[in-house]
Amino acid sequence: MKKNIAIIGAGSMGTALSVLLSKNGHSVKIWSPFSEEADMINNIREHIHRLPGVAIPEGVNCTCDLEQSLAGADAVVLAVPAQTTRANAAGIRKYMKDGGLLITCSKGIEENTCLILSDVIKQEIPGAEAVVLSGPSHAEEIARDIPTTVVAASPDRAAAEAVQEIFMTPKFRVYTNPDIIGVELGGALKNVIALCAGISDGLGFGDNTKAALMTRGITEIARLGKAMGAKPQTFSGLTGIGDLIVTCTSMHSRNRRAGILIGQGKSVSQALEEVKMVVEGISTTKPAYQLGHKMGVSMPITVEAYNILFNGKNPKQAVVDLMMRDKTHEIEEVVHESSWEA
Amino acid sequence: MKKNIAIIGAGSMGTALSVLLSKNGHSVKIWSPFSEEADMINNIREHIHRLPGVAIPEGVNCTCDLEQSLAGADAVVLAVPAQTTRANAAGIRKYMKDGGLLITCSKGIEENTCLILSDVIKQEIPGAEAVVLSGPSHAEEIARDIPTTVVAASPDRAAAEAVQEIFMTPKFRVYTNPDIIGVELGGALKNVIALCAGISDGLGFGDNTKAALMTRGITEIARLGKAMGAKPQTFSGLTGIGDLIVTCTSMHSRNRRAGILIGQGKSVSQALEEVKMVVEGISTTKPAYQLGHKMGVSMPITVEAYNILFNGKNPKQAVVDLMMRDKTHEIEEVVHESSWEA
Repeated sequence: MKKNIAIIGAGSMGTALSVLLSKNGHSVKIWSPFSEEADMINNIREHIHRLPGVAIPEGVNCTCDLEQSLAGADAVVLAVPAQTTRANAAGIRKYMKDGGLLITCSKGIEENTCLILSDVIKQEIPGAEAVVLSGPSHAEEIARDIPTTVVAASPDRAAAEAVQEIFMTPKFRVYTNPDIIGVELGGALKNVIALCAGISDGLGFGDNTKAALMTRGITEIARLGKAMGAKPQTFSGLTGIGDLIVTCTSMHSRNRRAGILIGQGKSVSQALEEVKMVVEGISTTKPAYQLGHKMGVSMPITVEAYNILFNGKNPKQAVVDLMMRDKTHEIEEVVHESSWEA
Repeated sequence: MKKNIAIIGAGSMGTALSVLLSKNGHSVKIWSPFSEEADMINNIREHIHRLPGVAIPEGVNCTCDLEQSLAGADAVVLAVPAQTTRANAAGIRKYMKDGGLLITCSKGIEENTCLILSDVIKQEIPGAEAVVLSGPSHAEEIARDIPTTVVAASPDRAAAEAVQEIFMTPKFRVYTNPDIIGVELGGALKNVIALCAGISDGLGFGDNTKAALMTRGITEIARLGKAMGAKPQTFSGLTGIGDLIVTCTSMHSRNRRAGILIGQGKSVSQALEEVKMVVEGISTTKPAYQLGHKMGVSMPITVEAYNILFNGKNPKQAVVDLMMRDKTHEIEEVVHESSWEA
């Protein structure tokens, strides 16, 4: 029952999961590339920058030595910025125990390759089938034992259930889902929509406007997902609409916060500087845009996000353009279109 | 193009629509049962209780004389508390112009009969096919010209398109949908979920918890809807998840506000007194509970809302029970279940 778990990355999610897993009876080592961060966790027992106010249990140990962190690990959790997944997967490869579980909780699509992260991991660690842990789960709340539900996704049912077993607590409920493509796309692409929801808030538009954007947002995500082989119903679940909701409405969301700043007139680089943490939605916007183009799928919100971020489009004009589209075809579009003829 | 429109009810929605429709070039009369309210609208040109700060255009006239308000009306909009729909429909019957459009923007299920409102209207006005106007649309924002999207639903396409034509402005986008059952159920039942989301907030639970509740909420609404003949995809649209989002996250929502007060320990009657307006979710909880029972559909959130409101169940226990259910069956349930076998 008790497992040895290595967490790669001591950001807010890595740290929060270390608290959860340690309290759940596991032996936890975190790897951080920063000795200052490792010292802080080991000595102050608090990550004062990423999770201020949360006590890190004595059992959690943080090291900058990758080999040491992975020694004897039954399961490895990647909690790193999405765009560093390839480098981190390559780094852990030689230290991974045969048959060890690999879990990723990063959310993004790799730039240039447009791959989902479980596919990036497969390229770097042949034979590895990473389980994706995703859902509406701000680290700040996980660490404080606030009731949270997530999904462990893998085509390998035994692996998904093993992850469920490791993480499940009365306050952290883990469901399983075989649709790893749908789960990954939902988690990655909702950050793009959250950026736009933030922009709408920053421009002073209302709750009605944002709810419309979010509804259209999950529709375009599901449309791309379907084209890529995901099950459309996954987008109606915790890792789709659930995660979209939490990301678009919570002040814990960096993506939303960055969007608000952009909506208020800040440049993208100013917004990033002010948020001070990785804003996954920004690096995922380009590959999301490229995937939509490649698959021939209409993704109007993603296109406007791309125009704002990379073509200098005025954010207000972008939101107005989104609201004004489809002037002639006004039957509501949902994933499976409804019609009088049906 | 210019129409004569009667609005029944001068609450926040009736008043907001009068502003929208008048600015859109129509001639608008509002009926109110309260002479004080009619005087306020006609003289002060502001509804100081329901829509403070919003100027009501000179063209809008309010009267307590039902016959006068309906004289020559091309379209009648019912904007009344859901539970008064039957009485109001019966009242307007004899004054309605032959072939006049009838629109309802009330959201609820009738107590005792468990009927959706368009069916209540049909019973009172034989031959009438009311168009349902629904979606994420707080009156406070409609009246302020904040970009808003809604759906006009009717099995009669021409009627839905006529409503679209009347209401559409650059900032108020009207889509159409033939699935009137799905549109009505989404609008009515999300108020029950919003009550519970408010309770969760009032108890101090987090954004993760609320997002999980909302995701499960739309799933149980869709499950009932499907059993009642609605199209499941309607619940992924503006009148389903869109309206649920706006109701569960906006402080404009009375349902959410009432829930917050209950979560904070107030009794139901204290909460109602404090909110001071009709809280549709409370009167819809019992018929929703009864419909679930009658159709043999699992609606765990609605059941807990019922237990809190009518059986004195402790709200915290109810939320904990919701998070803890399904301990053995942990595959994520969505409207169409996903599985490794599929």
